[in-house]
Amino acid sequence: MKRSLGPSPLLFPSPAIVICSYDKEGRANAMTAAWSGISCSDPPCVSISLRKETYTYWNIMETKAFTVNIPSEEMVRSVDSFAMTSGRKADKLRNAGMTPIRSEVVNAPFIDEFPMALECQAVQFIELGMHTMFVGEIKDVKVSEETIGRSGEGLMMDIRPLVYSHDDHSYYSVGKKVANVGVSIGR
Amino acid sequence: MKRSLGPSPLLFPSPAIVICSYDKEGRANAMTAAWSGISCSDPPCVSISLRKETYTYWNIMETKAFTVNIPSEEMVRSVDSFAMTSGRKADKLRNAGMTPIRSEVVNAPFIDEFPMALECQAVQFIELGMHTMFVGEIKDVKVSEETIGRSGEGLMMDIRPLVYSHDDHSYYSVGKKVANVGVSIGR
Repeated sequence: MKRSLGPSPLLFPSPAIVICSYDKEGRANAMTAAWSGISCSDPPCVSISLRKETYTYWNIMETKAFTVNIPSEEMVRSVDSFAMTSGRKADKLRNAGMTPIRSEVVNAPFIDEFPMALECQAVQFIELGMHTMFVGEIKDVKVSEETIGRSGEGLMMDIRPLVYSHDDHSYYSVGKKVANVGVSIGR
Repeated sequence: MKRSLGPSPLLFPSPAIVICSYDKEGRANAMTAAWSGISCSDPPCVSISLRKETYTYWNIMETKAFTVNIPSEEMVRSVDSFAMTSGRKADKLRNAGMTPIRSEVVNAPFIDEFPMALECQAVQFIELGMHTMFVGEIKDVKVSEETIGRSGEGLMMDIRPLVYSHDDHSYYSVGKKVANVGVSIGR
């Protein structure tokens, strides 16, 4: 028997990611975004959703570029700090002791200290209501040299990314491998 | 120092979810989808991406409705089996011993045995390349009575959802709570 919770944006698990962009003056900004997902395999695309109230929304409208920065769980305080203030008011990257690196493939910075970044050209803008969905074509994926292979178990465990739970407004870690794709047919 | 992996659809973590829909004859189908994400808070929307080769693509084009079914990690074999065959050839739900329940709010079924379902009206179809993104407005969220509260730690731990890793084609569990939103400012 199921209980109705009403219409609500609940999907488990959702990634906790940081969007980086440049403003009109070329200043790097970082913003933690709750809503994102891969939306195409070829060309590889990722979608992020932003409110017009954010500084990042207008940055991307101007530059048509952004990066999706994937944190490790040890970076939870930085991730959280990028969610708490606006880039209009503060240099959030400097305050967190993080270094923006200019992408060579799109007009946006990525965070040097984070283990992974997707460098994206914004190709579509879809108005949905409170949020606008930005579809970004992934032009390259960068991973820190010291991250690759450190777990011996693939990129997921190398990175140890953060999960965001909208239900209890918390960050979680990723746990253990449960099975390989193909387990149901004995692969 | 970062290494380039080339353009690739890698986002960590990504949810492992099952899309349910009806075909023209009203038969329920289930399909595991790799690509999804929340795309708006109000109205709440979820986006899923499908290839035209899937049975589900044409079902949703016909019915304009689908459900996003969130599994628990114990259901990994069913989730995997829904990824391995097409609904054109088999009654995948029956073969997995799962029960489709007709939604009262959209023209699509959800899986009785899964802990959670988002009932969605398809409102936009966006061609991106190999995949078409379907934006669904979430009309209701259903959670099993026996799931709610069983962990004492919120819905994420009540459900214990599956993570999909495209890098090593594996399913992972969700781990422990790392922090609450607001940790960076002492909340």
